Amino acid sequence: MVVEEKTISSDRVYTGRVISLKVDTVEIPQQGYGKREIVEHGGAVGVVALTDDNKVVLVKQFRKPIEKIIWEIPAGKLEIGENPKDCATRELKEETGYSAENMKLIHKFYTSAGFSNQKIYIYLATGLTPGERKLENGENLDSYVIDFNEAYDMILKNEIEDAKTSIGLLLTKDLI
Amino acid sequence: MVVEEKTISSDRVYTGRVISLKVDTVEIPQQGYGKREIVEHGGAVGVVALTDDNKVVLVKQFRKPIEKIIWEIPAGKLEIGENPKDCATRELKEETGYSAENMKLIHKFYTSAGFSNQKIYIYLATGLTPGERKLENGENLDSYVIDFNEAYDMILKNEIEDAKTSIGLLLTKDLI
Repeated sequence: MVVEEKTISSDRVYTGRVISLKVDTVEIPQQGYGKREIVEHGGAVGVVALTDDNKVVLVKQFRKPIEKIIWEIPAGKLEIGENPKDCATRELKEETGYSAENMKLIHKFYTSAGFSNQKIYIYLATGLTPGERKLENGENLDSYVIDFNEAYDMILKNEIEDAKTSIGLLLTKDLI
Repeated sequence: MVVEEKTISSDRVYTGRVISLKVDTVEIPQQGYGKREIVEHGGAVGVVALTDDNKVVLVKQFRKPIEKIIWEIPAGKLEIGENPKDCATRELKEETGYSAENMKLIHKFYTSAGFSNQKIYIYLATGLTPGERKLENGENLDSYVIDFNEAYDMILKNEIEDAKTSIGLLLTKDLI
């Protein structure tokens, strides 16, 4: 029988721009107390942008935490008070220049519930119109249009190694 | 043209049991400097354990960071120096009691490369033999055996909302 862990005390360790960190002391049923290190994140969206001829828009971005340039779907953090659908529209435009006639929520998930509350909303964008990119300061990425089946193969070959990208593309395969 | 971000300085904020946190000051090409908040994690594995009659073993676990009980594949953190395959075998046994004749790596991915270096290795376990569970202290979870197609439907209905679980099951669908 799985039960919730009650918070006994909470220690704020760090308040940051992208994440914050706290350590909770919790009561573990029949076992005493334990510590839970919790990384708080405001949430993010990822967009599977599909052209009329079944190509998908991917980006390549340098990610400092892993010291690598990796393939991803266009994505970004929710601004304070921002609706996920608006965030998807904004990030798609900023990172790739594309606007979409249709923006549909296809999945929501936690990236790593063991230590973080980060939630990602995946949108499927169709009815695309190309346009000019508007990268934010500090954003360092390139945008590509790739045949969907080729992108899918990249997952199977593990050339794609990013959670939201794999989830978004794997779910989209069922829809096209 | 995507380029790497060079570290100018690094500030260790917290060293923990599951995660550690640092904030790097980086040089952003043509833009000056920026801060990167980086959550370090030792890595983890997840196991898609498939019975001979195409059922899959799932667990339900309370996850403090999200204050929810969620469905997951059996999983756990790598111990220091532990090989991912050994971790998969160990966690499957501890959490579900099952041993597996075959343990095959099917995918590796980063859960949230925007702020963390956490990498998860997904294994497919087949040739299963049931046995007794050996939960670690502080582990609070129940184990279930569910028809694979039913588990797959749970993803589509978003009753599963966990990255490694969705990726593991979505990739396994292609294999069975």
